[in-house]
Amino acid sequence: MAVYTEVDDEELIAFLATYELGPLLSCKGIAEGVENSNFFLHTGAGSFILTLYEKRVDENDLPFFLGLMEHLSARGLTCPQPVKNRDGAALGRLAGRPAVIVTFLDGYSVHHPEPTHCAALGEALAQLHLAGEGFTLARSNSLSVAAWRPLFMPSAARADEVEPGLRALIGAELDHLESHWPEGLPQGVIHADLFPDNVFFIGETLSGLIDFYFACTDALAYDLAVCLNAWCFDAGHRFDPARAAALVGAYGRRRPLGAAEIAAFPTLARGAAMRFLLTRFVDGLNVPPGALVKPKDPREYLAKLRFHRAAPADAYGLPT
Amino acid sequence: MAVYTEVDDEELIAFLATYELGPLLSCKGIAEGVENSNFFLHTGAGSFILTLYEKRVDENDLPFFLGLMEHLSARGLTCPQPVKNRDGAALGRLAGRPAVIVTFLDGYSVHHPEPTHCAALGEALAQLHLAGEGFTLARSNSLSVAAWRPLFMPSAARADEVEPGLRALIGAELDHLESHWPEGLPQGVIHADLFPDNVFFIGETLSGLIDFYFACTDALAYDLAVCLNAWCFDAGHRFDPARAAALVGAYGRRRPLGAAEIAAFPTLARGAAMRFLLTRFVDGLNVPPGALVKPKDPREYLAKLRFHRAAPADAYGLPT
Repeated sequence: MAVYTEVDDEELIAFLATYELGPLLSCKGIAEGVENSNFFLHTGAGSFILTLYEKRVDENDLPFFLGLMEHLSARGLTCPQPVKNRDGAALGRLAGRPAVIVTFLDGYSVHHPEPTHCAALGEALAQLHLAGEGFTLARSNSLSVAAWRPLFMPSAARADEVEPGLRALIGAELDHLESHWPEGLPQGVIHADLFPDNVFFIGETLSGLIDFYFACTDALAYDLAVCLNAWCFDAGHRFDPARAAALVGAYGRRRPLGAAEIAAFPTLARGAAMRFLLTRFVDGLNVPPGALVKPKDPREYLAKLRFHRAAPADAYGLPT
Repeated sequence: MAVYTEVDDEELIAFLATYELGPLLSCKGIAEGVENSNFFLHTGAGSFILTLYEKRVDENDLPFFLGLMEHLSARGLTCPQPVKNRDGAALGRLAGRPAVIVTFLDGYSVHHPEPTHCAALGEALAQLHLAGEGFTLARSNSLSVAAWRPLFMPSAARADEVEPGLRALIGAELDHLESHWPEGLPQGVIHADLFPDNVFFIGETLSGLIDFYFACTDALAYDLAVCLNAWCFDAGHRFDPARAAALVGAYGRRRPLGAAEIAAFPTLARGAAMRFLLTRFVDGLNVPPGALVKPKDPREYLAKLRFHRAAPADAYGLPT
């Protein structure tokens, strides 16, 4: 959660005048998103989210992210829709930063997902993958298997501070993943970060997906593996087969998994656990003083990785 | 700005079920208020602010603050209005903390106030003072003249870190203020913290006053002196006579100042500068590691105090 940038009212009014959104009524910094500054924006035309992109987001990636949200919205997925200014541009500048206004989505994040939530997520994820077809821009996954060892090595010497033996465990797991990582699986647009924070519900109805700033082009089934890691373990990091069956089953009813995806899924699940284990471990070593963000515990994903290494192939509720 | 507490969706839904506000649609932590956790709340009944009171607010003061907002709203002042639950209570508990839902006010803070804004503020301040008549609860001003020396002394030895000679200057000024502080001025409910952050405008129209958590019973003219300090100096901390004349003139048209208030005003202005100089100085020495709040520069109020010490009696645009 973060508001990194304060916006001057006069600058904001001038910025808003380039849109057809009526007068400024209210603008409040909100604790949402860790990469950007986000504001709840109320104007004569309704409610919106104003996002200022901070340094961690590469400006060159913005056309991909914004174009994707537009593409998905146009195909019926409920996600923030970039609002265009009078010149037809979705991307502007405010407070010295790239700035975008998107539609406001009702809904809230679920802290303790039930199987019904996981089923709704599975269906929405498949819908996202299907709606992504025909999107012409591409963005490689900069946090996939090839990136993990270079991410780990500079900090490898400190891994045993998290838990004795972790350095060797990660090294061995990277060896395995690098030699077994599946190729040739169906590719497309993936969200790549569809954690409960980024999925809105109203009651048990999924009301929208947000935060597409890790979206990229990669194996669709990897996205499902990310969700399985993020949604199908309980607060004690124990795997919940009922949630997994609901997630995987609902996904497959909308977009049936192929035989190669099913065969690769256990490896993808291990890889997804490794990806978040590594970024949490490295981010935890590099918390800037005064940071607004409390670092997340890498051991959560170590527990999940251990589960996947030992799990039987039928653990995930995949079709047989 | 702060969100100190995260609220679980299930707890929030249960809390909201004690109100007649319809279903939860959205709840986002907002960067507003430094003492409490605030959330933008959207329900079937509209938009609200949910406030959780953190430790810095004394729970025993809450009936005063909430009763005051209700009293002022009922008398036509635009300020947040506490929403009562099905049992008729405005104060509940959520996430282990005292919790209140108030109405949402449109408007935004003005970063560079013009005389027109200051005139609107003066009128609203007088309206607040008049509307406060008949409010039966009282709360003494715990940050008035008697509190300043006890606040300063434990940190006095470090004052010269801010500026050489500051310890002696504050000591001499406290001597002066303690022996010249006016008594017998008209008393009533004062806001006591009506900085630009706490005053909403839409264009040049004042749309509401917020954050009554320093409100107390004190000399009404002292509230005007706080506003003069907060609104009538430019970004370089230079006094702006046009803004002061607009503020003081508009106030006086709605609630004419008496002769004793006019005579005491220069002392009240010095005292108001001292109050914020001291709290900023002390808060700046005690910033907790990882604090979300950037400490404000005490030297801003030192410059203002110096101005008041040298200002001629006719500087403030007071009636003669």
